[in-house]
Amino acid sequence: MAYSIYDASVPVMSRALGNLSNILDKAVAQATAEKRSLSELIEAKLAPDMRPFPFQIQSASDAAKGCAARLAGIDAPSMPDTETTFPELKQRIAKTLDFLNTVTPAQLAGAEARQSALKFPNGEFKFTGQDFLTGFALPNFFFHVTTAYAILRHKGIALGKMDFLGAA
Amino acid sequence: MAYSIYDASVPVMSRALGNLSNILDKAVAQATAEKRSLSELIEAKLAPDMRPFPFQIQSASDAAKGCAARLAGIDAPSMPDTETTFPELKQRIAKTLDFLNTVTPAQLAGAEARQSALKFPNGEFKFTGQDFLTGFALPNFFFHVTTAYAILRHKGIALGKMDFLGAA
Repeated sequence: MAYSIYDASVPVMSRALGNLSNILDKAVAQATAEKRSLSELIEAKLAPDMRPFPFQIQSASDAAKGCAARLAGIDAPSMPDTETTFPELKQRIAKTLDFLNTVTPAQLAGAEARQSALKFPNGEFKFTGQDFLTGFALPNFFFHVTTAYAILRHKGIALGKMDFLGAA
Repeated sequence: MAYSIYDASVPVMSRALGNLSNILDKAVAQATAEKRSLSELIEAKLAPDMRPFPFQIQSASDAAKGCAARLAGIDAPSMPDTETTFPELKQRIAKTLDFLNTVTPAQLAGAEARQSALKFPNGEFKFTGQDFLTGFALPNFFFHVTTAYAILRHKGIALGKMDFLGAA
């Protein structure tokens, strides 16, 4: 089997989201053991003008489901950004994974060459699926997953690179 | 042209490294304008037990050149981690980009199925090129690029998502 745009997208994001869910478990376990407030973690950010922790998870979810849907030419399920607790954030990740699991390699066949448009406040950009994935979707996805990790690390949660990468 | 493992690796990392170099320029420009010490940024980290800023750049460089070399079945140029200043870190990125620019799509043809081994302190793991790229190299690369961005953001450097993603 040749390498496909499915290989480069859906399983990569599914794996990272699964790891992220485990990272949330670790944060809750440690904070609970140390009798720390979970809302301290939920409200945490790295800079005063940065959006707080749930935004990073919601953005990673949006990046993943939006990417899979756009490449497949289907609509992503709407997920209003209402999560404010760790169980809700874990549920958001689980729902995202459920959707990713429904997207098949066949749906993404040829997506690298298909054109689609992305609307930004300052205009509309046309991409091929390939440019969308590699120039936008994948970097954007990892940006938010890593920032979520970095926020927890900054708040003293004991995490290491292998939590981010997952078991080999 | 079908999507290839080259498309999913070398240009993705080249683009992100180019953006990272521009981010370093922004950090130096702002710190200089504010008469702040650059060594404060060089020594910055998000947690006491995290390695400081140059390590993130060096690790992003290692991830990129190591990935391209492994997929091409060639040796990556050795770059001792001696950088301690912004000009040296920019030079490290430039040398990494120079190497990535020598790696051709033809060298990576079929790399998705080629086996290679990665040595860790706790053992040796065998990967196909595809598993190596998507399960390890790409997440690891973005982990360090994002952490570098997050450290500067945490230190008050005015950066936004578009600095990370680059111009569309």
